[in-house]
Amino acid sequence: MIQTIFNHRTIRKYKEATIDQQLLMSTLLAGTRASTTGNMQVYSIINTESAELKQLLAPAHFNQKMVTSAPNVLTFCADFNRFNQWCKLNGAEPGYDNFLSFITAAIDALLVAQNVALAAEANGLGICYLGTTIYNADKIIEILKLPKGVVPITTLTIGWPDETPELTDRLPLEAILHQEVYQEYNETSIHELYHEKENLASNKQFVIENNKPSLAHVFTDVRYKKADNEFFSEKLLAVLKQQGFL
Amino acid sequence: MIQTIFNHRTIRKYKEATIDQQLLMSTLLAGTRASTTGNMQVYSIINTESAELKQLLAPAHFNQKMVTSAPNVLTFCADFNRFNQWCKLNGAEPGYDNFLSFITAAIDALLVAQNVALAAEANGLGICYLGTTIYNADKIIEILKLPKGVVPITTLTIGWPDETPELTDRLPLEAILHQEVYQEYNETSIHELYHEKENLASNKQFVIENNKPSLAHVFTDVRYKKADNEFFSEKLLAVLKQQGFL
Repeated sequence: MIQTIFNHRTIRKYKEATIDQQLLMSTLLAGTRASTTGNMQVYSIINTESAELKQLLAPAHFNQKMVTSAPNVLTFCADFNRFNQWCKLNGAEPGYDNFLSFITAAIDALLVAQNVALAAEANGLGICYLGTTIYNADKIIEILKLPKGVVPITTLTIGWPDETPELTDRLPLEAILHQEVYQEYNETSIHELYHEKENLASNKQFVIENNKPSLAHVFTDVRYKKADNEFFSEKLLAVLKQQGFL
Repeated sequence: MIQTIFNHRTIRKYKEATIDQQLLMSTLLAGTRASTTGNMQVYSIINTESAELKQLLAPAHFNQKMVTSAPNVLTFCADFNRFNQWCKLNGAEPGYDNFLSFITAAIDALLVAQNVALAAEANGLGICYLGTTIYNADKIIEILKLPKGVVPITTLTIGWPDETPELTDRLPLEAILHQEVYQEYNETSIHELYHEKENLASNKQFVIENNKPSLAHVFTDVRYKKADNEFFSEKLLAVLKQQGFL
């Protein structure tokens, strides 16, 4: 287990081989063993294999090539639809059309996703998380026919690895760990904690290629821009409203 | 790994023994190997050990006994504060004061939490997720001194297990898995998928104890009530505003 966790690398290149059905099912079953609020299991997994549907999903994920090249695309959704139907069928009135319930279901879905990711990796498969799911949730809802009460939260592409990338750098543990209460940063500590990252050859190259004054500028001016974040925030809030959570 | 995932049970009773510092650090380090959007690592972990602070945190978690009886309380936070400070220090203008950035950071924090949970269990430790974190995020922010840009998402209590509960029931895999696109439920499928759960002796007992007509009513009328959900939704939205994400 520990070894699987420490060996994680994102796999973006997959062999053409498909995943054996039994292996896929046991990997997904591992997802359902994750903790879930009140054992409500307010999530769903959509397993998309058809080339046509993956082609339709691709633009929603900004045409990242993994969407069409991976044998399976797994969309993890916050899902109160099934639970609400069960309540109503029993004559109970569900009260889950609100923001707290959305976050509860999103938490459920993400713990399941990480279990599936690790079970996949333990089985020799490779995975890639697509953060784009929350950018274009509206399009994904349409393509995957998600009813009210269901919002896609994250996506895993999954398949047999056809590359062996290096481990990705991480900040030192003390950067993200706070003892007892939050320990506020200052100029000195920020400089120290980000020093190694800023001085990695790959990151220095990244700054040069993007013609920016610093690595931070590559994030703010190229990769995750304020205007984009605000545009996609509005879209995501509209999705929550449309799906009955706001 | 697979075995650890399938053996997961929530542990609510802990031995008095503390966790060796090195074991705790390697468990938390496992968290940092989780996938993270753009490798930004927009999360923090607060490790609370002091009896006084755990006592202060307890009411925010509705006095669940694990908060004071576990040697360690780990609060996983969405955190753009550190990243924003790094951007500003480099003269870059961060644009992460919006809802999309909050969800991005919350996703980061939850993948880390699940890695830590599984690493802990692989090391023989027991964990319990506290869903109450998002109910009383405002109080937790105050107690743990979380600055703007930081929102607590979930909490793990962690320690040496002093109980060996049964595995919890789960819906059959087909209840949560959809092939290609979402397969809408109907009365028949809902009845079938929830049949086993409704007929578990423990759940039948639960219905009788609560004097309700069905298990669904125990959820809607006792455990997760509409009025409570709406109250805590407003509080959580106010927290997002206060912490600079809305």
